[in-house]
Amino acid sequence: MKLYGYFRSSAAYRVRIALNLKGLDYALVAVNLVDGEQHGGDNLARNPQGLVPTLETDNGTLLAQSLAICEYLDEHHPEPPLLPADTEARARVRALAQAIACEIHPLNNLRVLEYLTGELGLDETAKHGWYRHWISEGFEALEALLADSPATGAFCHGDTPTLADACLVPQVFNARRFECDLSAYPTLRRIAAHCDTLDAFQRAAPAAQPDAS
Amino acid sequence: MKLYGYFRSSAAYRVRIALNLKGLDYALVAVNLVDGEQHGGDNLARNPQGLVPTLETDNGTLLAQSLAICEYLDEHHPEPPLLPADTEARARVRALAQAIACEIHPLNNLRVLEYLTGELGLDETAKHGWYRHWISEGFEALEALLADSPATGAFCHGDTPTLADACLVPQVFNARRFECDLSAYPTLRRIAAHCDTLDAFQRAAPAAQPDAS
Repeated sequence: MKLYGYFRSSAAYRVRIALNLKGLDYALVAVNLVDGEQHGGDNLARNPQGLVPTLETDNGTLLAQSLAICEYLDEHHPEPPLLPADTEARARVRALAQAIACEIHPLNNLRVLEYLTGELGLDETAKHGWYRHWISEGFEALEALLADSPATGAFCHGDTPTLADACLVPQVFNARRFECDLSAYPTLRRIAAHCDTLDAFQRAAPAAQPDAS
Repeated sequence: MKLYGYFRSSAAYRVRIALNLKGLDYALVAVNLVDGEQHGGDNLARNPQGLVPTLETDNGTLLAQSLAICEYLDEHHPEPPLLPADTEARARVRALAQAIACEIHPLNNLRVLEYLTGELGLDETAKHGWYRHWISEGFEALEALLADSPATGAFCHGDTPTLADACLVPQVFNARRFECDLSAYPTLRRIAAHCDTLDAFQRAAPAAQPDAS
């Protein structure tokens, strides 16, 4: 398999974590988002949305959207599972993942920040204010969801890593990069710190990627 | 089951479509987003993110996030399926759904538009420009994904409705409400029009809800 991504892309980071948790081999192909390679012909041919990540499977099929890719990996390589067996527990894990992937990350990715400072002419202070606002809104809700539930364990759900952890860790990484204050989210910090003790998460980290700069 | 939602919430609309496609009975409970009821104690107790929809299952479990709810319904009530059987096809349908739910809708929902005109002090013209920009970015990619694939049929994937259609129709409805020009997206218009001939989609439409105003 080949993973087209970028070391700092949160969505690519999720897929790296999933691949590593499954113990799967994959080749990394860098698409430099800062240089705009996502809008180039090569990337558009494999990903008409002009995004990363794209996973090329062993039979050459191209898969887009990080959560869809993770679900595919989970269906194709069931062990160890990224989702629990019980349907209500699966819904909880997916909802936690989507609380990040549908509520926080889309508002703070590169193309949105570029629109704020480009088309809307906002300054860096307003841009950072925007970033921190959506982190704070999203993390406050996520902290409540995790801290108040007996289903939360060493990880977001129980004591083995799931799709929710694969989304949480990259989002915490991003929040730290933008110097967001995370003191109000002890459960998120505890879980992210625990994930970061695992080899699968360490090898997926942006700094460990060949295209890190 | 009880569905806590709002007639014009795109995410609640998706779940209504899924419930109707499955032929499931449910009671609707309105949470008025314009009046701010999503931030009230009752809604926060069931949905700490302060969002809709929330599905209360027959055993009283509360489920959040529209795509997670749809996947739960599909696992609990497999017929008719919202996802195809083949894993690569499932990945395609999920990616189409997420191209809407993770790339378009999060940028254009009420709380984001309120931040633009509130905290950022943008006028209505800039707000509408923002809205149309993300519709146009997202729909252009989606049109390419659908028009260029032999897997597209009468619906987004083949000739039966899936999770992708349950996301597409509410997003097309929203785009029309904001008077976006959809002439460049003939495949999206064709599929949405076909969906709207089905009873399950008609009964899920905003205008057909008891809280429609």
